[in-house]
Amino acid sequence: MEGYKRMKLLLIFLTVSSVATSASPWLPMDGNYPGSYCLSWRLAIETNNVRAWRTVPIQCMRYVEVYMLAGQYDRDVQLIVEQIRVYLSQIVLPGDGMDAWIFDVDDTCVSNVFYYRLKRYGCDPYDPTGFRTWAMKGESPAIQPVLELFNELIETGFKVILVTGRDQETLGQATQENLHNQGFTGYEKLIMRTPENKKHSATIYKTTIRKQVVEEGYRIWGNVGDQWSDLQGEYSGNRTFKLPNPMYFVP
Amino acid sequence: MEGYKRMKLLLIFLTVSSVATSASPWLPMDGNYPGSYCLSWRLAIETNNVRAWRTVPIQCMRYVEVYMLAGQYDRDVQLIVEQIRVYLSQIVLPGDGMDAWIFDVDDTCVSNVFYYRLKRYGCDPYDPTGFRTWAMKGESPAIQPVLELFNELIETGFKVILVTGRDQETLGQATQENLHNQGFTGYEKLIMRTPENKKHSATIYKTTIRKQVVEEGYRIWGNVGDQWSDLQGEYSGNRTFKLPNPMYFVP
Repeated sequence: MEGYKRMKLLLIFLTVSSVATSASPWLPMDGNYPGSYCLSWRLAIETNNVRAWRTVPIQCMRYVEVYMLAGQYDRDVQLIVEQIRVYLSQIVLPGDGMDAWIFDVDDTCVSNVFYYRLKRYGCDPYDPTGFRTWAMKGESPAIQPVLELFNELIETGFKVILVTGRDQETLGQATQENLHNQGFTGYEKLIMRTPENKKHSATIYKTTIRKQVVEEGYRIWGNVGDQWSDLQGEYSGNRTFKLPNPMYFVP
Repeated sequence: MEGYKRMKLLLIFLTVSSVATSASPWLPMDGNYPGSYCLSWRLAIETNNVRAWRTVPIQCMRYVEVYMLAGQYDRDVQLIVEQIRVYLSQIVLPGDGMDAWIFDVDDTCVSNVFYYRLKRYGCDPYDPTGFRTWAMKGESPAIQPVLELFNELIETGFKVILVTGRDQETLGQATQENLHNQGFTGYEKLIMRTPENKKHSATIYKTTIRKQVVEEGYRIWGNVGDQWSDLQGEYSGNRTFKLPNPMYFVP
């Protein structure tokens, strides 16, 4: 954790100082500044109006960097987690052990921002080999508000099920160790891609998994992910929550 | 149109000058400024993470005012309309006259920002009588990029169907006249609420209407609205597009 904080502080320092020499980190609201295009673009991808985008627009690289590292991303995640707590406060659990909550893993439980920094925050196209090498290291830090929520859910009696598009065979051990090292322990299952569902899109794969979960008798109270493909399709859960991710799109 | 432009310029002038004396219209990205809370809140409502909200947080009144009037809202709408054009360019229409496109009316085709200005941009709770009085006047101006899209769709051969939660009996004539005066002519149908579906939520009412449209043999290629209740539920259309609206929520 300490290493993450140090690394992040360093990145913020580098970002803010480089921004100070190039463009102001203050974005105007008058719609005429280049940053206002990036704000429109970010809103459009987050609302699923722009789909199947392959890379971040090059003029938004600095914008995404500042967004991810200088506080706004953290505030956005924090506000969503607070909304999840409001929702949780209204639930009375049957308490028969079948109350489930689903989380995606990448950029939901743990952050890949340090990897995407090397990919110009998503301005470079997706690099499966590069990402696998990164994921093998198991060094993705916890997204702190999500870790806190994760622990609260388990304490409340939810069965937390992690569903990730990561490949079981090559990344199973590294993913488990990464999650455990970062404090994600006590979950019910970690479901990863097996060869048979490798050919499916994330939406179809994740819907198939959720269908199985429901058929096992679980009630899915909530479903949290950074991609619309985590949240769309059937059996999506009683409430879905979209975490921000302006760095990449998973179909 | 001219009256709208003059009114809007005046409002922008008043807004910018009052903002200049109270707070900067430049919002920082560092997540520590009050405006960054409002940016998080706006993202959360637009992504449907925050639901059933009744009023705009009072600390975001000025933020919403600046957002709506000083250009960012216009840019956001413009970018979505451009995305719709990208989608349209990929469609080959069967051309049998059954290709439909659905628009909501309020704050999709025409803007109520001048009404909501008197309601502190949504910081005041919904006032059905006040809104009816406003709507009776038929003075809601066209949202220009949507009007242009509307005309392009009709020229391309789409049957445009307008679906609004407005009450047919009391607002039918005023709504029709307002739309026509603002250039929305040549559409296939304007469907309004009749007594029998008055008791339903917007989601259920609009889903029922879309089901009828599909049963009549139409293909719904696109569906554009400012509320998630315009876009959710079955028969939602091949693609849905969420226009921004930080002023109110319709369940």
